Amino acid sequence: MKLLTTVLCILLLALQADAQTREKGPWWPSKWGADDEAGASNRITPAKILDSIKLVTTGKVYEIGQVYERGMPLFGERTYAMFIPSSPTGGPFGEKNQLMYHDEFLCAEIGQVGTQFDGLAHIGTRMEMADGSTQDVFYNGVTVEEMRSPYGVTKLGIENVNSFITRGVLIDIAGYKGVETLANSYEVTLADVRGALKKQGIAEDSIKEGDALFFRYGWSRLWDDAEAYNTNPPGIGMEVGQWVVDSKASMIGSDQWNSEVTPSPGEGMAFPVHQLLIAENGIFNLENMIYDDLVADEVYEFLFIFTPTRFKGATGSPGRPIAIR
Amino acid sequence: MKLLTTVLCILLLALQADAQTREKGPWWPSKWGADDEAGASNRITPAKILDSIKLVTTGKVYEIGQVYERGMPLFGERTYAMFIPSSPTGGPFGEKNQLMYHDEFLCAEIGQVGTQFDGLAHIGTRMEMADGSTQDVFYNGVTVEEMRSPYGVTKLGIENVNSFITRGVLIDIAGYKGVETLANSYEVTLADVRGALKKQGIAEDSIKEGDALFFRYGWSRLWDDAEAYNTNPPGIGMEVGQWVVDSKASMIGSDQWNSEVTPSPGEGMAFPVHQLLIAENGIFNLENMIYDDLVADEVYEFLFIFTPTRFKGATGSPGRPIAIR
Amino acid sequence: MKLLTTVLCILLLALQADAQTREKGPWWPSKWGADDEAGASNRITPAKILDSIKLVTTGKVYEIGQVYERGMPLFGERTYAMFIPSSPTGGPFGEKNQLMYHDEFLCAEIGQVGTQFDGLAHIGTRMEMADGSTQDVFYNGVTVEEMRSPYGVTKLGIENVNSFITRGVLIDIAGYKGVETLANSYEVTLADVRGALKKQGIAEDSIKEGDALFFRYGWSRLWDDAEAYNTNPPGIGMEVGQWVVDSKASMIGSDQWNSEVTPSPGEGMAFPVHQLLIAENGIFNLENMIYDDLVADEVYEFLFIFTPTRFKGATGSPGRPIAIR
Amino acid sequence: MKLLTTVLCILLLALQADAQTREKGPWWPSKWGADDEAGASNRITPAKILDSIKLVTTGKVYEIGQVYERGMPLFGERTYAMFIPSSPTGGPFGEKNQLMYHDEFLCAEIGQVGTQFDGLAHIGTRMEMADGSTQDVFYNGVTVEEMRSPYGVTKLGIENVNSFITRGVLIDIAGYKGVETLANSYEVTLADVRGALKKQGIAEDSIKEGDALFFRYGWSRLWDDAEAYNTNPPGIGMEVGQWVVDSKASMIGSDQWNSEVTPSPGEGMAFPVHQLLIAENGIFNLENMIYDDLVADEVYEFLFIFTPTRFKGATGSPGRPIAIR
Repeated sequence: MKLLTTVLCILLLALQADAQTREKGPWWPSKWGADDEAGASNRITPAKILDSIKLVTTGKVYEIGQVYERGMPLFGERTYAMFIPSSPTGGPFGEKNQLMYHDEFLCAEIGQVGTQFDGLAHIGTRMEMADGSTQDVFYNGVTVEEMRSPYGVTKLGIENVNSFITRGVLIDIAGYKGVETLANSYEVTLADVRGALKKQGIAEDSIKEGDALFFRYGWSRLWDDAEAYNTNPPGIGMEVGQWVVDSKASMIGSDQWNSEVTPSPGEGMAFPVHQLLIAENGIFNLENMIYDDLVADEVYEFLFIFTPTRFKGATGSPGRPIAIR
Repeated sequence: MKLLTTVLCILLLALQADAQTREKGPWWPSKWGADDEAGASNRITPAKILDSIKLVTTGKVYEIGQVYERGMPLFGERTYAMFIPSSPTGGPFGEKNQLMYHDEFLCAEIGQVGTQFDGLAHIGTRMEMADGSTQDVFYNGVTVEEMRSPYGVTKLGIENVNSFITRGVLIDIAGYKGVETLANSYEVTLADVRGALKKQGIAEDSIKEGDALFFRYGWSRLWDDAEAYNTNPPGIGMEVGQWVVDSKASMIGSDQWNSEVTPSPGEGMAFPVHQLLIAENGIFNLENMIYDDLVADEVYEFLFIFTPTRFKGATGSPGRPIAIR
Repeated sequence: MKLLTTVLCILLLALQADAQTREKGPWWPSKWGADDEAGASNRITPAKILDSIKLVTTGKVYEIGQVYERGMPLFGERTYAMFIPSSPTGGPFGEKNQLMYHDEFLCAEIGQVGTQFDGLAHIGTRMEMADGSTQDVFYNGVTVEEMRSPYGVTKLGIENVNSFITRGVLIDIAGYKGVETLANSYEVTLADVRGALKKQGIAEDSIKEGDALFFRYGWSRLWDDAEAYNTNPPGIGMEVGQWVVDSKASMIGSDQWNSEVTPSPGEGMAFPVHQLLIAENGIFNLENMIYDDLVADEVYEFLFIFTPTRFKGATGSPGRPIAIR
Repeated sequence: MKLLTTVLCILLLALQADAQTREKGPWWPSKWGADDEAGASNRITPAKILDSIKLVTTGKVYEIGQVYERGMPLFGERTYAMFIPSSPTGGPFGEKNQLMYHDEFLCAEIGQVGTQFDGLAHIGTRMEMADGSTQDVFYNGVTVEEMRSPYGVTKLGIENVNSFITRGVLIDIAGYKGVETLANSYEVTLADVRGALKKQGIAEDSIKEGDALFFRYGWSRLWDDAEAYNTNPPGIGMEVGQWVVDSKASMIGSDQWNSEVTPSPGEGMAFPVHQLLIAENGIFNLENMIYDDLVADEVYEFLFIFTPTRFKGATGSPGRPIAIR
């Protein structure tokens, strides 16, 4: 019986061999084509850049990312271990000028520690395909089988993503609610978002394609207490996630470790906003940000700059997001 | 006799204990104060930023850094090893939404591999101090003893440096000389620099405090051949180095692995321009860049953006330098 | 049509769901049971140990592994990077006793660099299973799906393997052939093995279950020249591999980087002796050894000691194999 | 005045330049010569080995080291991070035989995590030298200046140490005291040691040069609770430390993380037994062992085997210590 089954299956599967080019799926091909690996960073066009730099009126720079250091909150079993090999590391070079030098050495999930930018190879979904097989599928329908490689993914690597030179909009939910920090597991509603925008004097319809949308929950206040920081944070859910998609944002950001409400209120759901934004819509997600300086100056619109470092085959990127007003 | 010597020395050294606060030295205190750790990135003022963004007229972005990958040229015994832990790394999370994810893991001299930005803790000089002791001294007179720590330097770490949002000027020496690549160990002269600027239609006195000055030798053409790339490159020497200092640049960059002519023509000298710029003047140095796209479009002035990632206690930073025209 | 195929396949596969407990396969269950993870290290019984220590008559220790260091030959893209974090790493501890200390830090494919012991999770075979699926199958029929985990395999990890305290037999093929080093890609024949044993005065039938069999090709002479060392080495092929299996050895070893003749003379075959020994018979393989001291003293039988370090979920182990006479 | 001081000091120091060869110091030259780097492992002579293997009567092997794994207790900021790069890591190799393989990758303070063997480069003392300078001094008078190197110490590296094939004696203090685990910070006295030996039927004067002496505090019971394990443990102090030195042991071991009572009862003292044993007497120290199986069988004397892995320039070694009865 087993042999018969096997033979039959092989025959039947052969019949649909023509189907082996990637079929249309629930979220692919992407709106930027079947081969796209840049996702919503395609929305950062020259015109968008020209438009965004007009927001600069004072030249003041705001740091909106955290410093990377030992002891900062890490997810799960991730590692951040930096060293100075010897000290000084080497020298003297040059009999006369006696040059000495230091290097540093880092071992880390480089794109998934500290202020971290989730790329398109980071989040996927296990699903049954049209051919009956089970696959782990990422942005644009790329499967694990297509991208698997020990030394870096071969598709959807962070090196394909454009730099973000765009309009940033900070949506200060904690400020709107009048609290320092939203409660654990509080789901930010669309009404909250609209209320915050209104309070800040930003018309909802001023949000344009390619904008970067930042949600402030007040969670960065816990940054120095890794245990507290890693508890279930407040965040956006599917309702606001869909609004982000409809807004045609290029990316979102937040001041907690995964941006969305945790745990997800949906039964049997874990981090579904990640799938919606990243896998299905190519919209990026920058976690573990800090907005204190922006809020102190009541700066809610600004030129946002983030240049993902092009580590070939990486799933994300560290970096230094800044706002300029 | 030995005991006597020891006792005498201890006595004499005690007499000058008052001298133990850091004395004035050949290059310290810095022009930004005795406690400064940001060096010439202090020249990126709000006014400088406002001025520089005026250079953006089309919104076109140019990549002027290399992609980081296994097999790229590395200096000495440095390492660049990236992995995907398993593949997928984890999941499924969520019974219903079946989220899968990938991480990456990197082991590297993070600030000293690939396109690398030399910070103030990277380069120093072994020298005899006023008190007769021998010390390894860095920017602003900071000694190794003052900054040594196994897990990151405690002074002059890269986290203290401002982002570079400034005017970039590309000085295309190879183009001026009419060659694809300058010869091994060719020292770029000040006449070359002036000739190139003139050919490009840039007045020398248009170079202003805080500008980022980039030298093109044509060396990036060898990037894919690590052995050839790591041979002795052409570059600037002390003559042009001093001109950079006099120009009050915030940083320099180049398309080879150490920016300066190698070996140094000075007898007994190794990488002396590094000491002149970084240790003595706090001027930064971005190595292993690529200017092909700029040259193709004849773009020699542009908005330059580079945001050093704030790895606490690191000696440099990777990143993604871009030019916008 | 595609839908029909899918439905049919699902139905048929469901019919054989009862077959999903692991079936008997070409090389499983193992002779030590369906759950065994120790392989031929099971042959190191107390009786075998008692027997083997009788070989010690002088107490002289021979080093038969290489020292681990930067620059040693590495396979493919593997890494061996060791550091001293600062120097000293820390201290002083204790106001009075002023204790100082050094640590070291290592990044490496710890079980697959230098003198390396291949464990049961290291080598498998991609094959079609009885149920028609394609699987990567290791020792005892364990599939990648059953052992995959980002932080260490969950089955067949090196921590399950017994220490080797057994009789070692050195078979000096290079000595038998009267050469310093066998030629590139030379396949050692069974006649060679028998000739060498005879020359050494060791009766073939004295080889007993659990012995460790070491082949000397003279290849370690190239150790200091990584490029030469990594070229195609001489080694045993399937003929001698089968003889090893029939001899009921616990493990083999050799003085080159993969123990077997490279490339394999069999068409379309790559490292087939690895599959025969490790995956199919649970016989271990210790690579990159050195036998110079044994040969100098004409020591061909000895107490062999190797204790694989129990890194949980690792595919192999570094270590320090020794012979005692 | 400062100039005068400096000149005088230079003159005086020059006068004693002849003293720059290393002088006799409080604990150097070592009893194995001024150039020795093997310490008390020199006590493992062929005669000692011959004598020790006579202890094997049944061939039963006891594991007396812990398995290395994520989450195990680590000291301070040390790291243990292992990965499987992809899974499978590579393949198929060979069109016909379709070989697949796994590697693992480890980042760790390789000799100072888990069951760890402290080598001679691990522990030193900051002290004033005869010439008036302050130095960090290790075994045999080697200073940090003499051994400092970014990629591994250049003196006293673990590769210089002999393997331990010797008589092991377990001294079960917890058993003697009738407790599961000794109390935090309890100092084991010489009376305890003598009482335990007597209870076990081992004459104190049967302890011979080169023996490995193991102290059982019952602390390994806490191994699975890293937080509890890392609290201040019981252990030996200077009294028993001196007895170890007088016993001419080759090494000690224990079932806690640093072997000695913590904190040290001596005022201003931190880990002084480490200095006494390792730096001053070259006696090694194996931490984080487990003796449960030995105690269950009442095995207190045995053949002890530990082969430090020869990572060049490392300060210690991981490994798999075993006892054979």
